Amino acid sequence: MSKTNLTDIARPIQGEIKEFADHFRSAMKSKVGLVDLISTYILKQKGKKVRPVLVLLAARACGDVSTRTYRGASLVELLHTATLVHDDVVDSADKRRGFPSINAVWKNKIAVLMGDYLLARGLMIAVEGKDFDFLEKITDTVKRMSEGELLQIQKTRKLDIDEVTYFKVISDKTASLLQTCCVIGAMSASADPELHQALEQYGANLGMAFQIKDDILDYDGKFQLFGKTIGADIKEKKITLPLIFALNSVPEKEAKSIRALIKSKNKDVVSRVIEFVHEHKGIEYAEKVANECADKARLALRPVADSPAKESLLQLVDFVIKREK
Amino acid sequence: MSKTNLTDIARPIQGEIKEFADHFRSAMKSKVGLVDLISTYILKQKGKKVRPVLVLLAARACGDVSTRTYRGASLVELLHTATLVHDDVVDSADKRRGFPSINAVWKNKIAVLMGDYLLARGLMIAVEGKDFDFLEKITDTVKRMSEGELLQIQKTRKLDIDEVTYFKVISDKTASLLQTCCVIGAMSASADPELHQALEQYGANLGMAFQIKDDILDYDGKFQLFGKTIGADIKEKKITLPLIFALNSVPEKEAKSIRALIKSKNKDVVSRVIEFVHEHKGIEYAEKVANECADKARLALRPVADSPAKESLLQLVDFVIKREK
Repeated sequence: MSKTNLTDIARPIQGEIKEFADHFRSAMKSKVGLVDLISTYILKQKGKKVRPVLVLLAARACGDVSTRTYRGASLVELLHTATLVHDDVVDSADKRRGFPSINAVWKNKIAVLMGDYLLARGLMIAVEGKDFDFLEKITDTVKRMSEGELLQIQKTRKLDIDEVTYFKVISDKTASLLQTCCVIGAMSASADPELHQALEQYGANLGMAFQIKDDILDYDGKFQLFGKTIGADIKEKKITLPLIFALNSVPEKEAKSIRALIKSKNKDVVSRVIEFVHEHKGIEYAEKVANECADKARLALRPVADSPAKESLLQLVDFVIKREK
Repeated sequence: MSKTNLTDIARPIQGEIKEFADHFRSAMKSKVGLVDLISTYILKQKGKKVRPVLVLLAARACGDVSTRTYRGASLVELLHTATLVHDDVVDSADKRRGFPSINAVWKNKIAVLMGDYLLARGLMIAVEGKDFDFLEKITDTVKRMSEGELLQIQKTRKLDIDEVTYFKVISDKTASLLQTCCVIGAMSASADPELHQALEQYGANLGMAFQIKDDILDYDGKFQLFGKTIGADIKEKKITLPLIFALNSVPEKEAKSIRALIKSKNKDVVSRVIEFVHEHKGIEYAEKVANECADKARLALRPVADSPAKESLLQLVDFVIKREK
């Protein structure tokens, strides 16, 4: 089996990642001292840069990395950074990547404005480059991401989320951005609509597999010490695929009592729900669906010619499916 | 003297305002129940719709109102609504236009997401209509609005704002959107760059006059009961034009003691600062500057042929300058 890690996966575009970093740094510059100070603070926090890596790999797999590719990569990273800054405000999070969050250091008002600023800067890069096709994808993505989150909140309140709704939520809130990264990369390097569609399908399915795996890890993480804590979703009353399957496989009366348990302030709620999900094969089912998405992602790349970049995209699917935190 | 009010000013585009309302309502529609519920709630609150009125009047003054005009009007109103929703989160405001705010009814998380959704919807309308020229203006505006607010916060902390910075702040945070409304209206109705520039200049100066007048009213509002409370800016340590002028007209030692007073928790701070500003003719000076901006706004309209719509734009300048709340 491949011992994939993100550094290996990014190897075919190592030089391009460095050039992207310069591009991104200059995109974050501002003449307003406070904006520049916060930008520098964000740049110090070395994130995994998964989204720009996807843009660069998709471009390389379809043709040559161009200045348009770098604009696309900066656009998605600025948008992603903007949503993280806003997320930390709404979740009142104190930390991000081991650093105090923007809202923790500068307060909510500045954090919300900074998020708006980063989003606008990203869109401006596309406007200035006349990348109308990028804008079409990215505005639809911003809409889907916010609508998906709102749909999840709406359903969470009633604990009545079914499989169809679950797939819509994760497709909108998570997969849409990864899909957009891949198609933007493809569009920046090739004019072939077949390649655009291939990368778009790949990204959409990679994103679904990623989120389903994330939801599985909430029930089954082996590295709780390093990764996220087990049961966080249950505490937030988020009903994800493993639990949806388990609830569907028992009589309505039993499902009702589990829903009542989740709503309750019972101390054992997390351990009892995890036990219920394991007992009714919720994890196995979700693993099966995640693997199906992974297969679809791999299959989508068929029209793409073999190359180290394509190989990395295939390894990324394995990485997403097999990670344990 | 003209007895201008907003209803009279909007008379030349009365029919168009109704058509805009339909356009805007359908732009706010969503298949996600929660989004639609909040949209309906926002639509119930009849705002003054100053920004769409500006777009429509500018278009009518330059040519014919077109479907592109309605898209532009919806775009600016969606963007404005998005910023109000975010503003209420950061200010923890309970009320907006007499209704409980979105964050008060649905909590911060939903309000931030809803703001992002509205912004994306606005941009999507322009993308779908291929209004690349609108996108160029609007993304720059979103950037200027957030950067202007952040610059104001940065300077407020040190109480060291000078006249040049003050003009930059109000130009970015307030005038930029009104300027964009006017130029978008002009671009939607005419291909003549001279008219685009005329309306852009008009909007920029109208916006400056509006904000300076707003800042004067904080020291001199005659209708505190209905309008905003006097002294709100002083309490927030916002230093605006009347105070900047007064501080510049006294020896540094006296200016220092006023700054110390503003920083202090002294109970009489508001009344003492208001007295200081009146004593040193800060209001007269700011009125003079506001009138200069008003003159520039009127002058900018010279290349525009006479029409009821142009007349309304001129009356709007009077309205902005003469309002007492």
